[in-house]
Amino acid sequence: MKLFRTRIAVALCALLLLSTAALAEGPKKTLPGDLSLAQAQVILKAAQAKAEAIKVPMNIAVVDAGGNLKAFARMDDAFLGSIDISAKKALTARSFNMSTRALGAAAQPGQPLYGIEVTNGGLAIFAGGVLLVDKHNVVIGAVGVSGGSVDEDESVALAGAAAVAK
Amino acid sequence: MKLFRTRIAVALCALLLLSTAALAEGPKKTLPGDLSLAQAQVILKAAQAKAEAIKVPMNIAVVDAGGNLKAFARMDDAFLGSIDISAKKALTARSFNMSTRALGAAAQPGQPLYGIEVTNGGLAIFAGGVLLVDKHNVVIGAVGVSGGSVDEDESVALAGAAAVAK
Amino acid sequence: MKLFRTRIAVALCALLLLSTAALAEGPKKTLPGDLSLAQAQVILKAAQAKAEAIKVPMNIAVVDAGGNLKAFARMDDAFLGSIDISAKKALTARSFNMSTRALGAAAQPGQPLYGIEVTNGGLAIFAGGVLLVDKHNVVIGAVGVSGGSVDEDESVALAGAAAVAK
Amino acid sequence: MKLFRTRIAVALCALLLLSTAALAEGPKKTLPGDLSLAQAQVILKAAQAKAEAIKVPMNIAVVDAGGNLKAFARMDDAFLGSIDISAKKALTARSFNMSTRALGAAAQPGQPLYGIEVTNGGLAIFAGGVLLVDKHNVVIGAVGVSGGSVDEDESVALAGAAAVAK
Repeated sequence: MKLFRTRIAVALCALLLLSTAALAEGPKKTLPGDLSLAQAQVILKAAQAKAEAIKVPMNIAVVDAGGNLKAFARMDDAFLGSIDISAKKALTARSFNMSTRALGAAAQPGQPLYGIEVTNGGLAIFAGGVLLVDKHNVVIGAVGVSGGSVDEDESVALAGAAAVAK
Repeated sequence: MKLFRTRIAVALCALLLLSTAALAEGPKKTLPGDLSLAQAQVILKAAQAKAEAIKVPMNIAVVDAGGNLKAFARMDDAFLGSIDISAKKALTARSFNMSTRALGAAAQPGQPLYGIEVTNGGLAIFAGGVLLVDKHNVVIGAVGVSGGSVDEDESVALAGAAAVAK
Repeated sequence: MKLFRTRIAVALCALLLLSTAALAEGPKKTLPGDLSLAQAQVILKAAQAKAEAIKVPMNIAVVDAGGNLKAFARMDDAFLGSIDISAKKALTARSFNMSTRALGAAAQPGQPLYGIEVTNGGLAIFAGGVLLVDKHNVVIGAVGVSGGSVDEDESVALAGAAAVAK
Repeated sequence: MKLFRTRIAVALCALLLLSTAALAEGPKKTLPGDLSLAQAQVILKAAQAKAEAIKVPMNIAVVDAGGNLKAFARMDDAFLGSIDISAKKALTARSFNMSTRALGAAAQPGQPLYGIEVTNGGLAIFAGGVLLVDKHNVVIGAVGVSGGSVDEDESVALAGAAAVAK
């Protein structure tokens, strides 16, 4: 039995080494051209500067090309309820490759996409989510902002998006 | 130690045989006449051909008579947010045995089914989901399409459904 | 008031044209090198051939680099409960850049990641999910298979993954 | 028509002014001493520096005293599946005012809290979530890290927490 335990220990150690190796080596994990954290932080900084300029505390969320969260910041005194909304705005914009303002216009009662907001586990269909398009004209993600009026939100999102557009 | 390993090996083999037998034998698993994968793939192919003809990248989902996903394809550049919507359109159509366009008309503000879209974990109540009816006039599932305008979506769904209607 | 209605009609038409244009033109929607539908269908075909060879009906799901569903097939008589499992296996593999078998080993009681399966809305921590690595050694997604024993599932997933590896 | 448009414009302005006033004035929105965004960003920076030092790309999430997300960063090539896990680790640590390592020990099979991980919409019960305690010895939030082995995760979380402990 002692041998048995030793073998298990050796096997576990091998597994641990293996997984550590797997982290450091192996195939490339990210598609070339996808949004980097450095870019996302530039976006956050630009958006935050705009929010400070208009004196409205904001939640700011950035997703990459796959729609997965890359960076987030909630400014002091910003709405707790806007954590989720800012994230949903970013994901919604990337999910349909348009601003949440444009999607929202088509989702009003009587319009073609009325009711779309209950799909995808809940979408945000009001202004404040905009696409991130890089200088090669490729969509690399989206930024969502929530905390003020939707026009204020969108102005902050656009300030963020502008930071990586050119 | 050798005995111990042998017993484990025997137990594992017994388990494997059991599960393999369960898969291969026993009662028939599927209702006669239910949608086959071969049919679903014919539907996908016909829908995709229509989508290519109108130059709109689409998400296409096919469910069987039980409302369970049978086949799915997301064309290149099609909306990420339409994965869920195409699946919900197919499920919604089969769930109420009507097109999502017809259901949507009854779900507008002031109409009898206003608010139905929040039931069933979220329904799609705009055009693009249509029933699959076989040549014996039996509902065998539904197809849901999302990626363009709702009229474009529905035209692609109808092209898919036509492929098994006769 | 007639003028008012006319203006709304004009505005809506403009919006529709705009959104149609937005679909056809604008920035590139997909990162270069991401999994294509053509590749996903080659994977499905190879996996299905393997499943037929071992006579086990399978659910097969393919996700792209962002972890979003690209293609899916449920073979006739395959488990309904494996629709979700195959999708979760594919997403889990991509989410942690390892096979679900490797992740599962670390998630056993007493192991470092015990309990990880309740995160991310539910993970699949048993064999059958494997990474898709292209010929440039970049992770471009994952394939998840469910329907037989986990060894059978994994053999089918590996057959699928092999189809785009070289 | 002119009167009609004027009334709409007035109503919209009133609404905007109202919402802007609500943001700028009224009661103080945040508890004195709660985690600030500036502190959260210091934590992120310290954690990221540690992650770079040990060469493991990490997801890092920071929650405040109320358990709500304050800041987040996903380093390049870090696991997509760790977005949720890092957030859950931070929330779990603050929810029980202990490290996720400590909670996990009590949640093993046979231990008093076995099964706790399925409560609260899913908890993280492995190492990598640690409390944030300020220089006045008050819990002001938690940081959760995921991306490497749980020991690596925890070392990065501790590096982050140290940055505000004084």
